[in-house]
Amino acid sequence: MRTATLDVVGIGNAIVDVIASADDAFLAAHGMTKGAMMLIDEAQAGRIYAAMGPTIVSSGGSAGNTVAGVASFGGKTGFIGKVCDDALGAEFRHDIVAMGATFTTPPAPGGPATARCLILVTPDSQRTMNTFLGACANLTSQDLDAALIGSAAVTYLEGYLYDAPSAKQAFHDAAEIAHAAGRKVALSLSDAFCVNRHRDAFLALVDRHVDVLFANQGEIEALFETRQRSVWEGRLRAMTELAAVTCGAEGSLIVDHAQTLAIDAAPVERVVDTTGAGDLYAAGFLYGLTHAMPSAACGRLGSLAAAEAIGHFGARPQIELRTLLGALA
Amino acid sequence: MRTATLDVVGIGNAIVDVIASADDAFLAAHGMTKGAMMLIDEAQAGRIYAAMGPTIVSSGGSAGNTVAGVASFGGKTGFIGKVCDDALGAEFRHDIVAMGATFTTPPAPGGPATARCLILVTPDSQRTMNTFLGACANLTSQDLDAALIGSAAVTYLEGYLYDAPSAKQAFHDAAEIAHAAGRKVALSLSDAFCVNRHRDAFLALVDRHVDVLFANQGEIEALFETRQRSVWEGRLRAMTELAAVTCGAEGSLIVDHAQTLAIDAAPVERVVDTTGAGDLYAAGFLYGLTHAMPSAACGRLGSLAAAEAIGHFGARPQIELRTLLGALA
Repeated sequence: MRTATLDVVGIGNAIVDVIASADDAFLAAHGMTKGAMMLIDEAQAGRIYAAMGPTIVSSGGSAGNTVAGVASFGGKTGFIGKVCDDALGAEFRHDIVAMGATFTTPPAPGGPATARCLILVTPDSQRTMNTFLGACANLTSQDLDAALIGSAAVTYLEGYLYDAPSAKQAFHDAAEIAHAAGRKVALSLSDAFCVNRHRDAFLALVDRHVDVLFANQGEIEALFETRQRSVWEGRLRAMTELAAVTCGAEGSLIVDHAQTLAIDAAPVERVVDTTGAGDLYAAGFLYGLTHAMPSAACGRLGSLAAAEAIGHFGARPQIELRTLLGALA
Repeated sequence: MRTATLDVVGIGNAIVDVIASADDAFLAAHGMTKGAMMLIDEAQAGRIYAAMGPTIVSSGGSAGNTVAGVASFGGKTGFIGKVCDDALGAEFRHDIVAMGATFTTPPAPGGPATARCLILVTPDSQRTMNTFLGACANLTSQDLDAALIGSAAVTYLEGYLYDAPSAKQAFHDAAEIAHAAGRKVALSLSDAFCVNRHRDAFLALVDRHVDVLFANQGEIEALFETRQRSVWEGRLRAMTELAAVTCGAEGSLIVDHAQTLAIDAAPVERVVDTTGAGDLYAAGFLYGLTHAMPSAACGRLGSLAAAEAIGHFGARPQIELRTLLGALA
């Protein structure tokens, strides 16, 4: 087997985030569930945008954020995802390439517009997401750059891809390409509602294809339909090589075949917007993992990266995350 | 004279900011002068954007930021400025209307694209701006909504308008409409290089048309071609009813016919990006002025609003500035 030339290739929805502050009444008036991700169509996106406050626009997407985070730590990355050939698509491409990621997926020449996620941040710093998937629904197995996937130590997949039928197939094919090349496959469960929509498929996938699982506590409880930690911990231990379960301000749990490690959250001066906290946790963890660090160090890097994302509007890092590596020493 | 129904109408370049971190070497490689605003054409904008790091996109423009700030304090506002009928133009319009401002200027149906300002933020938190004026150059006196101007206690003009020839005429006409309606005219000098480009015109304008002048120390020194405070203070006192001169971390000086008041800067937890600090100072000051506050309170509101803007990427406020009013008590 060749040495991997990249650390992480992310495969996910190529989304631009459109972020505004809102109060709880706004969420209620628009039928949104706080903290969740809701799929919307283009007409709904237009209506919600018209009602939203002034926005900040920034590239996003779960796997895209994670790739940006790994790159910001100094890792070598690639990304696979579908944009349309429009202004937002150009912005997404600019931003991921500017991070240093290899991004070879051609844009769709027409059809649905580049995906956007309308994010409302409430005064409690929770983020509530409304996603118009647009061009993402056009990602197919033909878009999988097998050489790119084969060159990366870890292929990282986001659970949200399951909401786009053709992307779901690409998801499975990517896992097979990665394993055939002797690489590892990581998955983020993305969202408890997404887990509820696709539970059986996710269970089969984790069992068969996933080496490293990322999830928050709510997603794990949804996956295994239990709130008993000892139960889901046991099932995780049996099913995956490694799982990192984030528990908000409580930190995270790293579960492997032998043990469970508890990792503290990193202190945050002022919690502004939790968008991307999970994605950036995964970035720190994967940077550590692909640089032969022990699990505890991987978890600490995850905590540090998540804390940076929480301190400002938007999911992508606003500092060079490699400056956090010193905090490990 | 009718009572004003609006507090502030801003007339300025309708610009969307595209913000990225950069180091000093990037500025040098692209011939940029740190802290200044440089005018660029669309081709240069494309080249700089391609070279920039990942960006955050947010509505901007000096007067637009000030109007957004006044609105965030709870003031009643309007805006006049030219966008193109394109995606960035729709974003600018959404954001200013979402703040509660009346914005009646029709977009240009074609021609140059909506203006954008490529902003590089260096590790010292300084911002260096590269502006493609695009559609802004199409603002003419025909775009002046006389009823809107006449309804506002203060018409606020940005010096940057002088860089677009037809906007320059609109600038003068707007001042005349405001004064004919018995209102006040405020001007921001915008940038020391802009002052150097248009010194004689600015001096005539301040003398003849400006009731309230906003500038930073470098701009005032450029205007009067002196670094001696006693000299420029005397000239300001003779020329304008009221002038507020910001001096960075040193705070600001409020000069009127009778006296000069020194106002402290407000403490900032972490200086992130100074973009919009001057615009938001003007917002706080004008909110106070149009709410019959004494000069010292106007200055303190300016300091508080500037401190908020400095604490994050982007110029527009990220909190409801009216929550700062309590700090005056």
